[in-house]
Amino acid sequence: MKENSNKVPEAVIRRLPRYYRYLSELFINGIDRISSKELSIRMGITASQIRQDLNNFGGFGQQGYGYNVKELHQAIERIIGLNKQNNMIIIGAGNVGQAIANYTNFEAKGFKLKALFDTNPKLIGLMIRGIEILDIDKLTQEFVKQNSINVAVLCVPKNNAQTVANKAMECNVKALWNFAPVDIKVYDDVVIENVHLSDSLYTLCYKMNSSK
Amino acid sequence: MKENSNKVPEAVIRRLPRYYRYLSELFINGIDRISSKELSIRMGITASQIRQDLNNFGGFGQQGYGYNVKELHQAIERIIGLNKQNNMIIIGAGNVGQAIANYTNFEAKGFKLKALFDTNPKLIGLMIRGIEILDIDKLTQEFVKQNSINVAVLCVPKNNAQTVANKAMECNVKALWNFAPVDIKVYDDVVIENVHLSDSLYTLCYKMNSSK
Repeated sequence: MKENSNKVPEAVIRRLPRYYRYLSELFINGIDRISSKELSIRMGITASQIRQDLNNFGGFGQQGYGYNVKELHQAIERIIGLNKQNNMIIIGAGNVGQAIANYTNFEAKGFKLKALFDTNPKLIGLMIRGIEILDIDKLTQEFVKQNSINVAVLCVPKNNAQTVANKAMECNVKALWNFAPVDIKVYDDVVIENVHLSDSLYTLCYKMNSSK
Repeated sequence: MKENSNKVPEAVIRRLPRYYRYLSELFINGIDRISSKELSIRMGITASQIRQDLNNFGGFGQQGYGYNVKELHQAIERIIGLNKQNNMIIIGAGNVGQAIANYTNFEAKGFKLKALFDTNPKLIGLMIRGIEILDIDKLTQEFVKQNSINVAVLCVPKNNAQTVANKAMECNVKALWNFAPVDIKVYDDVVIENVHLSDSLYTLCYKMNSSK
């Protein structure tokens, strides 16, 4: 079932979590199977798009039967990589960093927060959900190795973001989740996802003005 | 300069905030003009893409001279709608709602937070940056009208998100910024932007696993 993932188009990758979300809902509601047509109506995309998307991962479903919800849910969970534990650190323990630390939904999906880091002496030593805010100096290759950290969440102001990203990468963190409103340069073997909140708000603003 | 905005492709709309971000940076750094080639190198997109994108809004720049940074910055500010004040409310004053309320960058761009709303008696009456958390019952058509609210930020759990969105829309709020991990149905004259944090984290997770 495992295909060469480099060939999966970005747009398909971005739809995977959405498939996962809808299938989780169906699964929770005790629905055993669903046709691609019915799923397409719920998700607001065409049935052929769904079939085409899933074919990137080997294809699922059976003509005239539809998809087995539990199987497809588990398959997408595995494809995304949610079937194993991921260990995170948060760099920057201000408002955004603390909000993410307090958001337990990620933990339920296997993203375990191991520590927060900050430079502010007023924050260092505080605990959030029993997890300590450490001095940024304690972020070392050894820490990353010992705690099997694979994700660093960057919640620092934009002017510090690249420096902090470099530090995380030097410590061998291979995935960055960036909340700073700036585009970060990463090493070839590092992946990054941005949550540009202001870009999202500005897009809303544009739509609001152009819909009048 | 104003074009029929319905015709502007979604992908171009999504790049507008990014242009704005880069031009702000150039402007702050005292750079007066920039060629589309140089801008393309900084932004990591082609020069022809930039010219094509900006042509959707009437075109800017002059052959052999490039773009006047200040003018283009102001033009994009106007196109997005950042040249006027927008009034926001936050519905759901938990971790995410409070983090957004505390994030003053939006205020600097004309997004003024007028109130937070919640149903939790422990939160109602508390102040964040001098802005009160009100009982959700106080969210009325009259409140929206009197405070010229045009954006509601939805920071509630997914099971309440559609109900809360309906309430905001019934009160004549025309733009929703949704942080709940669910797709919201909106009226024809309402625009919505989603910040699906878990979708973003799952995308990162997929990339991390497939890059190994």
